[in-house]
Amino acid sequence: MNTVELIIKKRIGKSLSKEEIFFLINSFTKRKIPDYQFASLLMAICIKGMNNKETSYLTEAMLHSGKVIDLSAIEGTKIAKHSTGGVGDKTSLILAPIVAAAGINVPMISGRGLGHTGGTVDKLESIPRFRTNLNLHEYKNVLRNCGAVLIGQTKEIAPADKLIYSLRDVTGTVGSIPLITGSIMSKKLAEGSDGLVLDVKTGSGAFMKKTKDAISLANSLIKTAKTFNKNVIAFITDMNQPLGSYIGNWLEVYESVKVLQDETRGDLYQLSLSLSGAMIFLGGKASSIKAGIKIAKEQIDNGKAFEKFVEIVSHQGGDTKYLLNPDKYPKSKFIKKIKANKGGYIKSIDNYQIGMAALELGAGRKTMTDKIDPKAGIIFNVKIGDKVKKGAVIAEVHSNSTVKIDIAKNMILNSIKYSNKKVIKPKLIKRIIT
Amino acid sequence: MNTVELIIKKRIGKSLSKEEIFFLINSFTKRKIPDYQFASLLMAICIKGMNNKETSYLTEAMLHSGKVIDLSAIEGTKIAKHSTGGVGDKTSLILAPIVAAAGINVPMISGRGLGHTGGTVDKLESIPRFRTNLNLHEYKNVLRNCGAVLIGQTKEIAPADKLIYSLRDVTGTVGSIPLITGSIMSKKLAEGSDGLVLDVKTGSGAFMKKTKDAISLANSLIKTAKTFNKNVIAFITDMNQPLGSYIGNWLEVYESVKVLQDETRGDLYQLSLSLSGAMIFLGGKASSIKAGIKIAKEQIDNGKAFEKFVEIVSHQGGDTKYLLNPDKYPKSKFIKKIKANKGGYIKSIDNYQIGMAALELGAGRKTMTDKIDPKAGIIFNVKIGDKVKKGAVIAEVHSNSTVKIDIAKNMILNSIKYSNKKVIKPKLIKRIIT
Repeated sequence: MNTVELIIKKRIGKSLSKEEIFFLINSFTKRKIPDYQFASLLMAICIKGMNNKETSYLTEAMLHSGKVIDLSAIEGTKIAKHSTGGVGDKTSLILAPIVAAAGINVPMISGRGLGHTGGTVDKLESIPRFRTNLNLHEYKNVLRNCGAVLIGQTKEIAPADKLIYSLRDVTGTVGSIPLITGSIMSKKLAEGSDGLVLDVKTGSGAFMKKTKDAISLANSLIKTAKTFNKNVIAFITDMNQPLGSYIGNWLEVYESVKVLQDETRGDLYQLSLSLSGAMIFLGGKASSIKAGIKIAKEQIDNGKAFEKFVEIVSHQGGDTKYLLNPDKYPKSKFIKKIKANKGGYIKSIDNYQIGMAALELGAGRKTMTDKIDPKAGIIFNVKIGDKVKKGAVIAEVHSNSTVKIDIAKNMILNSIKYSNKKVIKPKLIKRIIT
Repeated sequence: MNTVELIIKKRIGKSLSKEEIFFLINSFTKRKIPDYQFASLLMAICIKGMNNKETSYLTEAMLHSGKVIDLSAIEGTKIAKHSTGGVGDKTSLILAPIVAAAGINVPMISGRGLGHTGGTVDKLESIPRFRTNLNLHEYKNVLRNCGAVLIGQTKEIAPADKLIYSLRDVTGTVGSIPLITGSIMSKKLAEGSDGLVLDVKTGSGAFMKKTKDAISLANSLIKTAKTFNKNVIAFITDMNQPLGSYIGNWLEVYESVKVLQDETRGDLYQLSLSLSGAMIFLGGKASSIKAGIKIAKEQIDNGKAFEKFVEIVSHQGGDTKYLLNPDKYPKSKFIKKIKANKGGYIKSIDNYQIGMAALELGAGRKTMTDKIDPKAGIIFNVKIGDKVKKGAVIAEVHSNSTVKIDIAKNMILNSIKYSNKKVIKPKLIKRIIT
């Protein structure tokens, strides 16, 4: 097969065959196609798109570039979850123990944070000695013993994705539904689960700013998953403001503990229960999502979910004392309250800027080699629609640098818009697609 | 400026500003933008296009990546010509002496052949000792003394084009009107001419298969040239069959000599006169193209055009004895007549395949490092619409290899389609755009 001819085929909007897509992905993964040719192909895919068949072949080729984990030796149903990422989205930490407590296995391979979004792996690593780099043997053992396991990407899983993503990142080809689908699903399908709950975020802090685009992505993910005989439920959820109130790695573990101990309710609590409910339903332990949510709530109420969280952390080597006594966790050198510079109803929040402010404070990374400060972050006290008086505390920032605090303060203040009139609160769950 | 953001800007179909285009071209020429990023940009331009302003900025940036020749010290008008290339297109060799004989300066910087199309430089170099690599001082001297000069691309002229073209060639991004316009015009504008006649080929042996696309390219070239205050006339001409009958480097010089000596008339003669007439008109020595054609014809009839050709070749170091006695030129080891394997009216010729057959015989190159056999080629005796009897000689192939002759024979026979009914001959000049 001739690479240039295949590039031209996609450029003029024709579909690529299974053989052609496998040839391109395999050759690129083996470094037989140079970056400049693959970059040109990626841009052609970005603009001309791929149909559902092509997207499935792409996913399959990327999936089979690495290992597919076989969990058939572990009893029970395995249900995974994936979120497209956002600001303050720590639901994985909450739903994994809830769903495991309800008797369903939750195998989770997560990413690290990059840019304005946090990563589950970074959050877990803020717990001293927590190991996210289990090998596949350990991964299976923890899952078998606890019913849940949370690790980071391994080199064995979908290596094509890592290569392709690096190139997309520097060639302006990140924003493409078939390429995003291939990237997400090749990794999720490798985890070995039987079903999958997707949380596709939309809004100012999400990758997909428009609900329409989030729905398109959800549909593409669902169609692709179904060609691999996986059951899927996708939620389209709001990311126009931080989820919960805590942003930053340890701060998010802390808020997760509070949710699991039923000490806080709100959007984070609601969404965690909904996603858990869908997982429990998919896993066959409830007759509907609603019935699943009821079971999920029980796991919080009876204390089993929090117990399970402590158990998972313990099995993965983490120091559980901070979960039991969060106040003992080290604090940032500087903690500063941010006061509203205006008054009124909060009309909108540039949630991307809130994520970037947390990054500035030390909670995130601009490049994959940056180091994270686990204590740094923001406690964001307000929600869209809240009435705020000028001078009221709207956030608290944690950092080891006063310079960073000043930068973040301005970013936070500038990201909030006020209105004199009442503002309707955004709907948390915009749609559920099955 | 951020390269990835500019790539995305083009990807989503927005126009790039002058500053942005200059930044991209200059950075790439200085190798500050890696190939993979520029490849992605090229594909975005290829699919999303560029408006006339962007195309002019692109051309300007590419033009100013190198030297712009100043011919103002040479008296008289300077008119250049550019053809988009085809099979058997040797008009440059004919019109340069005609137009120079009519008192207009003809500065010509031409390319080498690649793939199925021949290059003026290769044809001229088939004349022993002919120097196409004059330096700029020599270039000006020959032009001043002869009224015409024909050389190859130099490193000083539009170096950005060379880099960009190499990348387009391997990334499936050759077929783009703005990119082709930038490539052609950046080099043509550097030549230092006051006006330009364009021969945009269309048909099976041309880069633009469809007349519609050839017209689009011609319009893009004209609009761009006009922003640089150059007078332009574009011809859209047929390339569904070889121009003239001779294909191959020395064979084409030979046919040019025959035209200049008024020993052969036909499509090559007609087109050479038409293009010459337009150049004479643009150069201000005739009141119309028609009046220019009359003057052009006179230069053949009175022998001055052929004299001028000998003069140019002599000034550029070439051995003129072969022009005066072409029969003394060395012959290929093997010369074989090709006979029609069917009978009927010739309905169509896959002219691309005829060009590739000449390449196989040794007349062309597959990669820029291949060596050319100046003697090799095809004498193609038939034209679309001709009535041919089975067994009649339709072509004669010249090569130093019998294996190559067999390959070329099959290619030639397979490229011709016959009809039982009369076939209308294609129109040579499809349109003239000013």
